[in-house]
This record gives sequence, C-alpha cells and structure tokens, in this order.
Amino acid sequence: MAETTTSETDAMRRAVALAASPGVPLHPNPRVGCVLLAPDGTVVGEGYHHGAGTPHAEVEALAVAGERARGATAVVTLEPCNHTGRTGPCAQALIAAGVRRVVVAQRDPNPLAQGGADTLRAAGVEVETGLLADEAERVNPAWTFAHRHGRPFVTWKFATTLDGRSAAADGTSRWVSSPAARRDTHRLRGLADTMLVGTNTVAVDDPQLTVRGDDDLPVGVQPLRVVMGERDLPAERRVFDDAAPTLHLRTRDPDTALRTLYAEHDRHHVFLEGGPTLAASFLRAGLVDEVVTYVAPMLLGAGRSAVGDLGIATIADALRLELAGTTVVGDGPDANVRLVLRPALRPTERGTN
Amino acid sequence: MAETTTSETDAMRRAVALAASPGVPLHPNPRVGCVLLAPDGTVVGEGYHHGAGTPHAEVEALAVAGERARGATAVVTLEPCNHTGRTGPCAQALIAAGVRRVVVAQRDPNPLAQGGADTLRAAGVEVETGLLADEAERVNPAWTFAHRHGRPFVTWKFATTLDGRSAAADGTSRWVSSPAARRDTHRLRGLADTMLVGTNTVAVDDPQLTVRGDDDLPVGVQPLRVVMGERDLPAERRVFDDAAPTLHLRTRDPDTALRTLYAEHDRHHVFLEGGPTLAASFLRAGLVDEVVTYVAPMLLGAGRSAVGDLGIATIADALRLELAGTTVVGDGPDANVRLVLRPALRPTERGTN
Ligand SMILES: NC(=O)c1ccc[n+]([C@@H]2O[C@H](COP(=O)([O-])OP(=O)(O)OC[C@H]3O[C@@H](n4cnc5c(N)ncnc54)[C@H](OP(=O)(O)O)[C@@H]3O)[C@@H](O)[C@H]2O)c1
Ligand SMILES: NC(=O)c1ccc[n+]([C@@H]2O[C@H](COP(=O)([O-])OP(=O)(O)OC[C@H]3O[C@@H](n4cnc5c(N)ncnc54)[C@H](OP(=O)(O)O)[C@@H]3O)[C@@H](O)[C@H]2O)c1
Repeated sequence: MAETTTSETDAMRRAVALAASPGVPLHPNPRVGCVLLAPDGTVVGEGYHHGAGTPHAEVEALAVAGERARGATAVVTLEPCNHTGRTGPCAQALIAAGVRRVVVAQRDPNPLAQGGADTLRAAGVEVETGLLADEAERVNPAWTFAHRHGRPFVTWKFATTLDGRSAAADGTSRWVSSPAARRDTHRLRGLADTMLVGTNTVAVDDPQLTVRGDDDLPVGVQPLRVVMGERDLPAERRVFDDAAPTLHLRTRDPDTALRTLYAEHDRHHVFLEGGPTLAASFLRAGLVDEVVTYVAPMLLGAGRSAVGDLGIATIADALRLELAGTTVVGDGPDANVRLVLRPALRPTERGTN
Repeated sequence: MAETTTSETDAMRRAVALAASPGVPLHPNPRVGCVLLAPDGTVVGEGYHHGAGTPHAEVEALAVAGERARGATAVVTLEPCNHTGRTGPCAQALIAAGVRRVVVAQRDPNPLAQGGADTLRAAGVEVETGLLADEAERVNPAWTFAHRHGRPFVTWKFATTLDGRSAAADGTSRWVSSPAARRDTHRLRGLADTMLVGTNTVAVDDPQLTVRGDDDLPVGVQPLRVVMGERDLPAERRVFDDAAPTLHLRTRDPDTALRTLYAEHDRHHVFLEGGPTLAASFLRAGLVDEVVTYVAPMLLGAGRSAVGDLGIATIADALRLELAGTTVVGDGPDANVRLVLRPALRPTERGTN
C-alpha cells in the first residue's frame, strides 16, 4: 500500500475523473489523468490525455504548472511512460521539470513497459504506486486486460428469442432484436476496437460491421473489421468496403487469432458478433470474457440456435456464467432485455480475485 | 361514470385496501372490501371478506355499524351478491339494514350473477357503479378474467438457459433454475388455484406439483393438480399422492380442458408448468395469458428446447409478447432473471383495451 496523504488521495480522485473525461477515445491509448500539487497541497496543474497523437496527461499538466512544477508532487493514474512514443517519455519530462515526488495509481500492466517508476527513482524522485489502483484500472478495463494477458478482451454479443433462437426455421432473422437493441449494439460496438465474425456470417448475411450511430451516439474511429476462417470470400462482400479497415485472419484457432490481433495490430477489445459456430469455438476455448445478450420477447419454437454445439452432454457440465447486469432497452412493444454476464469463477478461484 | 363524492372516493380507496388485506386467499372467492359512511361522511363500519365460509365484506361492515347503518352509504369494491350462498345474499342484508345508497367499484364480471344492483334499486336504494373499478379489478385479476371469459387465466412458466434449453443433451435438467428461482416458483404456484402438466412430464419427471414453501412463504390451500392427456398413468406417480387433490383430464383439447376446469371445478387461474409439448399446444391455441420465465445464466449449446414446435416457419410469424416485468431473483452466482410477458396486442387491438 502506498504511503500517501489525504490531499494526494483527493488529487488522485480528480485525476481519475480527468482521465475519464467525456469524448476521449478508449483506444488505442489508455486514458490517463494527472494533477500536480505544490508542497502545500494546492493544485498547480492538471491535464489528461485526449487520445493518440496528443500530449500525455503529465506533459499537459506540466505545461499548465510551468515553473510551479519544481518541487511539486505529480499524482497520475498510470505509471509514467518510459519509452519515446509520439510525445517523448513522460518520466524524463517529470524529472526535467523538477518534480520531487510521483504518486501512481496503476502500474503499467505490460511488464515490459514498467520502466517509468524505476527511471524516476534512479533520478532521485520519490515514487508511490497503488493509490486508487482499482478505480484507475476501471477507466481502461480492456486496455489493462489486453496488456496483462497478451490478448484482447472478448465480448460476445448475441440476439436471441425467449426460446434461444437466433433465426426462424427458414433462416430469416431480420429482426430478432428491436430497433432500440440494435441502436444499443452500435453503441457497444463503438466501445470496442475490433469487430469479429466467422467467414460463414460474411458469406450468408453480408454484414457491414461498422458502427452506425444516430445523432445521440458519438462515433469515433471505426473498429477494425476482422473475419476469421480459412475459406476465400468474394471481394464484393460489404465487410471489404472502404468504411473501415478489414482483416481476413485465415485461421480457425481462436487463441492464435487473438494473440495476433494484440501483438500485430495493437487490439484490446474484440466484439464478437457470431455466428453461432465461431462463438461456440471461443466459448469452448474459454476465450469469452463477457457475454452481452439481447433477449427479444418472442417465441419461435423452431429455427437456428443462438449458439453452436459446446460439447456439453449433461447439466452438471453446463457453461456457467454470472449475471453482471440486467437492463430493459426500449419501451413497450419495442422493449428487449439486455443481459451482461461474465464467466463464473470456479469455487477455487473465488476470493483470490 | 358514477356520480360520487370525495368522501366516497376516499372510502372506496380504503375498501380496496381492505379487500387486499394480507392473508386473504385469492381463491375460490373474490377478495372484497366494504366501508359504511354515515350521511355526514364519517365511517361507521368497515369489513372485508376473509375467504370462503366466512361472512361477506358487507355483512361484516353492517355488524360493526349496527343501528348506524340506517340511512348510511355502503361503499363496496364488488357488486353485492344476489344469490343465497353460504352466507345469504348481501343485497338483501343491505336493504334490511336500511342502507340508503350503495357505491360499487366493479360490476360482477359474470353476467349471470349481476342481479345485486337491480335488487337494490328495486328496493329503492340508490346505486352507483364504476368508482375506481380498475383498482378493484386488480385485487382479483384471475377471478375477474375467469368469470368474464368462462375459462381460467393461464400462466405458463418455464425455466430456460440463456440459449433456450430446458434440459441437457442427455435429458438431465436438475437444476436449470437456481434455488432462489425455485422458491419464487413455489410462491407463484401458491397464487394460482390449479397446476397443469402434460402426461409425459408426469411419466418422465414424476413431479409432485405441490406448493412447498419455506417459513417465509405462506402456503394456504394446495392448488388442484391437473394432468392432461389421453394415456393411462401409473397410480404410483407422486402427482396422485394425498398432498392435494388431482384430476386427470383425458383430452388433448386445451379449450375444452380450460372450460371444464372453470365450469365444473370453479378454477380461475391455471399455472401451466409444461412440458414443452403441452405448452406449445396452449400457445398455438392462443390460450396463454401470461408467460413467466426464469433465465438461468448458463449455456448448454445442445439439449431439449424450452418450447415445442409452434408451426412458425418465418420470423414475421414469430409469436410476439410484451415485456411486463424484469426481476433478478437471487444474488451472485445464484441470480436468475425472471421475465414476465403478456401476449402482444396486434395493432388493431391497441387502444381498444
Ligand atoms: N443472432 C445473432 O446475434 C447472429 C449473429 C451473427 C450471425 N448470425 C447468424 O449466424 C449464421 C452464420 O453462423 P455460422 O455459425 O454458420 O457461421 P460463423 O460462425 O459466422 O462462421 C463459421 C465459419 O467460421 C470459420 N471459422 C473460423 N474459426 C473457426 C473456429 N474456431 N471454429 C469453427 N469455425 C471457424 C469456419 O469457416 P472456414 O471454412 O472459412 O474456416 C466456419 O465454417 C448467419 O446465417 C447469421 O444469420 C446470428
Ligand atoms: N424446464 C421446464 O420448465 C420444464 C417443465 C416441465 C417439463 N419439462 C420437461 O419436459 C419433458 C416432458 O415434456 P413433453 O413435451 O415430452 O411432455 P408434456 O408436454 O408434459 O406432455 C405431452 C403429452 O401431453 C399429452 N397432451 C395433452 N394435451 C395435449 C395437447 N393439446 N397437445 C399435445 N399433447 C397433449 C400428450 O399425451 P397423451 O398421449 O397422454 O395424450 C402428449 O404426449 C420432461 O422430461 C421434463 O423434463 C421441463
């Protein structure tokens, strides 16, 4: 636990709020906030990172503080970077400005990138880490997950009837989900940096896989569109249009696909939209970190299942999830239920997390 | 609309609350409340019906008022009865006590039983009907429905996984629903007066179909257990034990079954618990008035569907319902989602109801 003062805790709370400022993209960079405190505890500078290509939070706060940074304490939500990115390493900038002490919430989750604290210490700067670390992590959940696990966080989304169907007996599925649920899906797509589907969904449904918001929905950079599977696909498919970049990963191995997306494409959050076959493969491999399902208040009695075979024969082996949220999306006849679920921890894992 | 005073409206609100007093059974009699007002608007008597075999609400209120009933106004949630039941007709009792005016919320929904108001008027008593009628109806929804339609209200309950399965591939289904969801089911069973299943559920699962509450759950009279289907069943099945009365209806016609339950067994609320085949027949016949489903946060990927074939081939013909309620039942890993749904009105029906 960090040895910190009350004014540092207050400043960290403010830094977390700055990091989470509206309009800052979630990808590819982490959202970071920084508050500079004079020795008497007054705030002499604040800043936050506005997204890739703009100054880091520390640099913005130092610019505000100017000469008052000398002898100050920097309270920052993430360990200052050590590498020379587009804006130069923040650890060096803090040293050069004469900052005496640095209080960090979250260590860099990528062990290879954790040099910032050491660089500061080597230059004689006091460093404390871990203050409000959980709050800070929650500002960048997918980014943190990806760097910690070496693969993107995977959200699997599916739409289903009350009786678990994703399409009617004749294959028709427009629309199982309501207009409100589809708008909500676009909002969630916009929080991820990668859309993923199997080749057969592209072959059969020809989805565009872009984020299309109405005026209420902030749409930033389009997620990368990824199609996974070994077969060739016709170039006229909408997923290959100019609306966003697209990658065809010619593999059936979910683990390889995810590691490639992380290591070669800097991807942190995959939004998996099916089909049932690809989703089942991810589920069987234990590579689904979150499930979002829109339950439509209708019955079909027959038709395609929302999820493919999971190799489960008996109820004791069911893939158990834990309910994380229940929300009614839309009103009246348009109401669907959105359920958010996470894989259930096995009893041995409980309490260790 | 009734011509009534403010103190009569206040008295009716009180009468509705009395009718809905805790502990009063929902079946077989309607729950009724009565308030007697002196000409100056003061309350001179109150009463409510405590269940079959006990005095009617009007009789209880008259007993409290004694001589003060003369010239009073009786404010009562349901049209006073005209027939000689176990307690004698209330219309006659009100006349005999010298009541001058009767304000009624709900007319008797059974047209054949609507004589009370006319009997009162013929004796020179002023009668107004319709004051807070909707509120009064909501105290006896199934009773009202049954008398209006000549058949019981049907609630279909099913438990399902997220992917619409009611059992795994090998037929195992204990337990799809969580302990909290099963407790909640017993509570809902206790609100109905009839349990209904198909012969195959009895043959395969051998359920007891009783209401079993823990100490928190008030358990009154057990619902009638009804098994529907033409085949013979072994007498050793648990549904034929002594815990509650049981009826084997040897028919496959849901409409006939429901009319028989109403006309010959005075049943108002059927709780249909499957299986998928019988439920599908009720759904196809348009004889499901309410759906209650417990969605368990688990996936099976294979196994028996929660509902049998509905004869629906294409998405446009889906059986559409409207969401009436969403509740999380239980906590943590034990949490299930209870959805309550009603058949969606077709556009032509909207606004007429
Ligand atoms: N309700 C919904 O939310 C929803 C969402 C999406 C799609 N859908 C429906 O789902 C249907 C398509 O689903 P689908 O299950 O047939 O296709 P899919 O899951 O989109 O694609 C399956 C194909 O993906 C490839 N693949 C890549 N990695 C794989 C792996 N690890 N395991 C297995 N296959 C892998 C294989 O093709 P290769 O031979 O190319 O390797 C496989 O045939 C569409 O018709 C659509 O209507 C519904
Ligand atoms: N998850 C749940 O909530 C739940 C609830 C209950 C049961 N279940 C499961 O469902 C299984 C049994 O389901 P099931 O669908 O096979 O049986 P079912 O619906 O209980 O019974 C079907 C039988 O009912 C008779 N029947 C009566 N009226 C009918 C009608 N209108 N249409 C069609 N049949 C009618 C027929 O038998 P006759 O030949 O006798 O006429 C028919 O074979 C059990 O194994 C149980 O595990 C699940």
